[in-house]
Formats: sequence, C-alpha cells, structure tokens
Amino acid sequence: MGIESKLRATSDLQLKNVDPASTPGFKGNKDDAVKALAKGVLEIGEQQERLYAESLGGGTRSVLLVLQGMDTSGKGGTVAHVLESVDPHGLKIHSFKAPTAAERAHDFLWRITRELPPAGFLGIFDRSHYEDVLIARVRELADATEIERRYGAIQEFEADLVKSGTTIVKIMLHLSADEQKKRLLARLDDSTKEWKFNPDDVDQRGFWNQYQDAYQIAIQRTTTDAAPWYVVPADHKWFSRLAVQDILLTHLRELKLEWPAPSYNVAEQRARVGASKV
Amino acid sequence: MGIESKLRATSDLQLKNVDPASTPGFKGNKDDAVKALAKGVLEIGEQQERLYAESLGGGTRSVLLVLQGMDTSGKGGTVAHVLESVDPHGLKIHSFKAPTAAERAHDFLWRITRELPPAGFLGIFDRSHYEDVLIARVRELADATEIERRYGAIQEFEADLVKSGTTIVKIMLHLSADEQKKRLLARLDDSTKEWKFNPDDVDQRGFWNQYQDAYQIAIQRTTTDAAPWYVVPADHKWFSRLAVQDILLTHLRELKLEWPAPSYNVAEQRARVGASKV
Repeated sequence: MGIESKLRATSDLQLKNVDPASTPGFKGNKDDAVKALAKGVLEIGEQQERLYAESLGGGTRSVLLVLQGMDTSGKGGTVAHVLESVDPHGLKIHSFKAPTAAERAHDFLWRITRELPPAGFLGIFDRSHYEDVLIARVRELADATEIERRYGAIQEFEADLVKSGTTIVKIMLHLSADEQKKRLLARLDDSTKEWKFNPDDVDQRGFWNQYQDAYQIAIQRTTTDAAPWYVVPADHKWFSRLAVQDILLTHLRELKLEWPAPSYNVAEQRARVGASKV
Repeated sequence: MGIESKLRATSDLQLKNVDPASTPGFKGNKDDAVKALAKGVLEIGEQQERLYAESLGGGTRSVLLVLQGMDTSGKGGTVAHVLESVDPHGLKIHSFKAPTAAERAHDFLWRITRELPPAGFLGIFDRSHYEDVLIARVRELADATEIERRYGAIQEFEADLVKSGTTIVKIMLHLSADEQKKRLLARLDDSTKEWKFNPDDVDQRGFWNQYQDAYQIAIQRTTTDAAPWYVVPADHKWFSRLAVQDILLTHLRELKLEWPAPSYNVAEQRARVGASKV
C-alpha cells in the first residue's frame, strides 16, 4: 500500500507539518479504507500464528507495538480492530496507567520489562515507557536531568531488546485539538461511553502544546533504524487503523516468517496415529 | 437458547452417557449454528466492556472460564471464535503447560493464583489446575493421597474466589476418540498445521479411557453451584463453540452488568470541554 514509508519519522520531525486529518500514501475514501482493512486483518492473524509456531521450535523472536497518543486518539479501538483476527493466545496487551508507589520506587523501565512479549508473542503497549518523557516532562514529575537521562536509557533499552530478537514498532496517533474536543463531547453525550471520560483528561488537554513539544522531542531523540517511530494522522479513525495495520504488516513481512518444518517424522507419526486403538 | 441448562454437569455424571456428536438444546444444523454464533459474539463483547467499566469505578467482579479437553478438542479455536469481538484489553488468557521446576517446587495452586483475572477482566484458562488431577492422576505424577487431597483443595480455592467476586465457569470439551484420530491425521496432512502436532499427543491418546475416568471423577468431585462444570459435546466444532458462547452469556447476563453512572457532573464537564482552548 505504501502508507508505512510515508509515515516513518525522522530525527528532524516537525509535528506541526503533519496534518492530523491527512491520509498520506492512501488515495481512497472511508469505504475503500474499511475494505482494505478487512483484507489485511487475516494476514496479521496468520503472520502472528507463524511467529508463535516458530517459538515452539525454539525461536526467540517477538514483536512489540508501542501505541502512544493523546486521550481519545483511538489507541484502544485501533488494537481491537487491527488485531481482530489474531488468536488471543498469542497476544500480550498491557495498558500502562500512572505508576504505583511500588513502581515509582524502581527505575522507570522496571515495570516495562515485566510486560514485554515472550518469544512468539505480539505484544502491545497501550501507553508505555514514553509516558516517562511525556507526562513526566509536561507535568514535571521528574527533574530535567532525569528526563534528559531517560532518552538515552530508552535508546539503549530498545537496542538491547532488538538484539535479543524483538521487533519494535512505535506509533504516535496524531490527533488535532479540535477533533479531541469533538470526541470528548461525544463521550459525554452517550451513557454507554461516559465511563471512558475522566475529568483529568480536560486538565491534560490544557497542556496540549506542551504535549506536542514533548512528543516531538521524544520522537526526534528515540527514532532509530532499529526501533522506528511512526506519526499516524488520527483525525480519521478509518485511516489511522489502516495505517497501523500497514505498518505492522510491513514489519511482520520483513521477518519472513515460515511455517516451521516438523521436528518429527510425519509418515511415522501418521502410521502411529492410524494404528492407535482406544 | 437453552443449551446451557442441558449441559450442566451433576455430581453423578456418567461421561459414557454423553454422546460427543450430540447437540443438546439445539435443533438447528451447522449453518444455523454459525448464524447463532455470529449473533452472540457482539453481546459477549459488550458484556465484557460493562464488566471492565464497572471495575474502573471500584467494582471487584471478574469472570474466569476454565477450558479443559483432550488434544484437538478445540480449546484454542473456541477461544478465538467465541471471544472474537471482545476488546483484548479486557481479556487475560493463559495456557498452562507442563509445570516448570520452579512451579513444581510450590503447591499446585501457586502458579494458578498468579494468572487469575484482575477485576473487570474476563480470564481464560486453556488447561488449568485440573491438569493436576487429570494427567497427574493418569500418569501418576503425584501419589494417590496427594491427588485425593487436591479435589478438596480445588473446591476450597474456587469457593474463595467466588466469594471475592469471580464468576467461575468450567467447561470440558468432550471429544470422541474417533474424532480425535481424524483431527490428528488432519494436522499431519497440512504443512500449516504440522507445528500443532506433538508425538506426545499419541502417547496421551494411549491412555484415553484412563483420561475419561479421571475427567469423570474430577467433574463429579468439583462441580458445585458456585463453580459448575459443563460437559460440551465437541465432535462438531460448530456446536461446541455455540454451546460455550451460550454458557458464557448465561453467566454474564446473571451478573446484571450495567453501564456505571458517572462519578462526575456531566453538564459541568461538558461546559469545561466546550470552553477549553488550545
């Protein structure tokens, strides 16, 4: 499809130049996008199954998708739609909330390592260690020296993960402030959605521009060939879901996953099963 | 639909009286079952979302589905199909394998407690603590006194869980030996399925009747009003999936899950969002 290559971030990223309502690499409309999404859903499921099958034979590879974005940017819905046909046995999803007291007593990466995908798994971080250079920077939850240290720590941490067999894909769902206002109001207008609203979301919204700056710096400092960042325009959910799918599929295909050769003699086992009596 | 009530096990269960090819409580054919399954899929998703929403407001309820069955009985596929529309954020699935040395050094329930669903979650055990009275009994991995002790320990453990807010539903996918033979051979005839075959499956198959006995005793001894067992005929996947859905939906509906009332003033927050400028 060619969406993936258009969205890969560079170390001189300027977020203001990325229109949250744009659809880079995709010429179609909403209907076309929905159809294209449905087409890729099964492939992601099969690729993940191959990854899992490989791990049963001793393979150590895994995939980690990091999803970041402002409230209402669609992180939850993206996971549900893009991964619809993935066998949940091979998924490991974790939503990172504000750290607990126990978590704060450790280095910021401590709680992250505990949620990494095992071999064969597709891991999803809904928010991640990047909160420690986003909200932590904007709301001054750590001092400037510590924030500064973290960019380097993240780079090293991710480089080590990649070396040990984890493919890392990092995505920022890039929403406009106007679209966020619409989505927050929509939550307040629907009794089945009210529970998703938190007054704190409005407080965070008050720091919108500071968050944009923090995202830009984090992406500039931590996008690498080994663990690239993507900025996905997210005002149109139909586009952002398709884009996340395209990015994920691109990386899965690069793994050249094959069904593993059996570790046993097929003819011999067929004969054993055939002869087995109960 | 009325499938659930037909499949609930009693403490005098005789497995040989349950035909694995039967479809109790369901009059339709395969096409009808596929349609009925599609209808219920969205409701399970919504019920789970309500459970999750409730937990955000401090609710402590959760649901645990225990799936047991001989190799190829369809545990994996059942999860994938029945839970297709459940937001993976609210699912916690664990496949229990042969215990590791560290796990064997603890009581058999130690590793189980670590995988229980948190409040708001739908937990799935693909195999479970019941292996400790199934394979452990058949293959004599523990002595008779210890096996005997475990039935009582399981009853107490589950009763405590139920008291603390977990709904427990236990399902045996009841397969015939002939159908297992077909499914094992099918795995050996398909290069995309060979990885699912393990020569040990044929060894276990050699103990078929002992396993049936062990299942029957386990179910007789641990089916309770609080944590009931269901025996689901599993020779027809279209029926077993529909049956698992019906059983799960019955229990979810009994929870009378409602969208929680907001903990904030909706009009006030609407005004705040409306007035917020970026």
